[in-house]
Amino acid sequence: MTGTMATIGKKWKSVIIYTIGLKRQRFGIIHTKMGIISRKIPTEQLKELEEDGIIKREAFKEVPPRVEYFLTDKGLELLPILNMLTEWNLRHNSGGEVGG
Amino acid sequence: MTGTMATIGKKWKSVIIYTIGLKRQRFGIIHTKMGIISRKIPTEQLKELEEDGIIKREAFKEVPPRVEYFLTDKGLELLPILNMLTEWNLRHNSGGEVGG
Repeated sequence: MTGTMATIGKKWKSVIIYTIGLKRQRFGIIHTKMGIISRKIPTEQLKELEEDGIIKREAFKEVPPRVEYFLTDKGLELLPILNMLTEWNLRHNSGGEVGG
Repeated sequence: MTGTMATIGKKWKSVIIYTIGLKRQRFGIIHTKMGIISRKIPTEQLKELEEDGIIKREAFKEVPPRVEYFLTDKGLELLPILNMLTEWNLRHNSGGEVGG
């Protein structure tokens, strides 16, 4: 259990997983969705998620360079669980939520 | 999403929710299950979980005094979600896990 929460427990990781979802997303979109100024936090969290095998990063040799993030199978399996968590939270906690 | 993770995101909270589960548990059992020396962490986490309405604390006027913790309906709804997270983690990450 501690391992699970250590993997996705940090509050921003679930926002990132949720934002990428079934699509491919760029850093800018993910950063905007997090609604924070720091670029350091999304950069670190994306790196950790990549190391944990939850997301993949693909860089395209273009000018300007293009980088996209997408969920691995392991990451995709988390989506329904995160949805249940979000619904649980909506049922029990009002107040603004990033990513519901 | 951030709210959800902020509520249960801290890694010990899921261990506590899991340990209490469908039973009533005393501080000592919860503390032992966490496998850490500090009594401060479980004390704080239990207090936060109580404030968030996820657990309830019942004190019995006995000598010595007896205190039990149990999950509220809101807390009970989290159990299947935490189970799914644990199964996800077991599928993808080997290595020792407190609470599976």
